[in-house]
Amino acid sequence: MRPLRWRVAAVAAAGLALALEALPWALRWLRARRRRPRREVLFFPSQVTCTEALLQAPGAGAAPAQPPAGCLCRLPHGESSLSRLLRALLAARASLELCLFAFSNPQLGRAVQLLHQRGVHVRVVTDCDYMALNGSQIGLLRKAGIQVRHDQDLGYMHHKFAIVDKKVLITGSLNWTTQAIQNNRENVLIMEDEEYVRLFLEEFERIWEEFNPTKYRFFPQKKRGH
Amino acid sequence: MRPLRWRVAAVAAAGLALALEALPWALRWLRARRRRPRREVLFFPSQVTCTEALLQAPGAGAAPAQPPAGCLCRLPHGESSLSRLLRALLAARASLELCLFAFSNPQLGRAVQLLHQRGVHVRVVTDCDYMALNGSQIGLLRKAGIQVRHDQDLGYMHHKFAIVDKKVLITGSLNWTTQAIQNNRENVLIMEDEEYVRLFLEEFERIWEEFNPTKYRFFPQKKRGH
Repeated sequence: MRPLRWRVAAVAAAGLALALEALPWALRWLRARRRRPRREVLFFPSQVTCTEALLQAPGAGAAPAQPPAGCLCRLPHGESSLSRLLRALLAARASLELCLFAFSNPQLGRAVQLLHQRGVHVRVVTDCDYMALNGSQIGLLRKAGIQVRHDQDLGYMHHKFAIVDKKVLITGSLNWTTQAIQNNRENVLIMEDEEYVRLFLEEFERIWEEFNPTKYRFFPQKKRGH
Repeated sequence: MRPLRWRVAAVAAAGLALALEALPWALRWLRARRRRPRREVLFFPSQVTCTEALLQAPGAGAAPAQPPAGCLCRLPHGESSLSRLLRALLAARASLELCLFAFSNPQLGRAVQLLHQRGVHVRVVTDCDYMALNGSQIGLLRKAGIQVRHDQDLGYMHHKFAIVDKKVLITGSLNWTTQAIQNNRENVLIMEDEEYVRLFLEEFERIWEEFNPTKYRFFPQKKRGH
C-alpha cells in the first residue's frame, strides 16, 4: 500500500507543481488579452481632412471615417490629428469635462453639441476674455443648454484639457481654434490613465466650484499681458 | 528501494512546486524594489517661493530646497510648482531639449544656463515672434553659447515641452513666463515614459532639422492671429 500512496502523492505534487508554474503565465495571458489602455500623441499642424462622417452619423465616433453618402467636398477623407481628437471626444458616453482657454473651432464645437444631444453630461470651463472673441463656440454651447463657467481672475484660465467619461485625459498645448489646428506646432496627449485623470478631475472640480456664478463680481478687472 | 525512490521523488516534486509558486512573488518583490518611474503633475499658479537654493548650489537639483547661507529674502523657502519644475530640469546630466513658445522667466533661464555650464548638451527651439519680446531669455541663452533655432512659419511654434536626458518628458500648457507661473491656471506633466519621450524627441528632431538656419529665408512673413 505504501508505494502506491507515495506514487499518488508524487503524481499529485507534480501536477500541483505544473499547475502552479502555469498560473502566472495564464494570468499574464489573460491580462494581455484585456485591452491595452489608450495612449496616443497627436501632433499639429496636420493635414486638413473632411470630418463630416464623424459629425453626421448618429452613433458617430465608433464608425471608421468614411465619407458620408452624398459628401461632395474635395477634402481628403482619411485620418488626421483633428479627426483623431474628434473621435476621442465622440467616444464619450456619460460625461465630458472641458477646461479650455480658447474654443473657436466649429468641428470641435459641433462634436461637443452632438454629445450634449446624446445625453452626455457636458461641463465647460473657459477664459472670460477669450470666450467673447469673434468665432468663439462658447455662446453656441450655452445656447444649446450646456453649462459653461468662466474665470474672473487677473491671470488666464490657460488649461487645454478634456476628460472623457472620467477615464481618458486629453491634454496638451493646443487651443481649440482652427488657426492652431491648421497652422501651429502643437501636441495633444490622449491618456487612459487613472492617476492623471484623477488629478485633472480634481483640478477641474476645484475650478468649477471657484467659478460658481454665485461668486462672480461683475465685471472682472482688465487683465495683464499674456 | 522503490518506496524510498518514490519518497525522494515526492519530496523533490513538492520542493519544486513550492519554488515555482514562490518564483512570481519573488519577481514581483524584485520589481517593486526597483524605482518607480517618475510621474508628477504640477498645477499653476502656485505660491511664490525663493528658488535661490536650487540655483546657487554647484550640484543643484539633487539637494533639498534649503535657503542658501545668507539668503535674506522674505519669500517662503518651501516647495512650489516652480521649484519642482526647476528640480526636474536641474536633474539633467547629459542632454536637455527645449521646445518653447515663450521663454522669459529668469529662474528657468538661469537653470538652463547652469546646465549648459555643467556641460549638459542644451538645444532650444522657439517661436520667432516671442523670442524678440522684452524680457525674453532667448538672447541671454544665445549669448551664453547655447544653440537656439526658431521657426519662420505663419503658424506659431506653440509647443511647451522639455526632454531631460532623453528619459523624462516635461510638457503641458505652461509657457515659461513669470506671468503664467504666478497668475495663470496651467498644468505641467513630468513623465518618465519611454514611449512618450521617443515620440516627442522625434518631433523635436523634425523641428530642429526644419529650423536649420541654412534654410532661413530672411525675413519671415508677418503672422496671423493667435
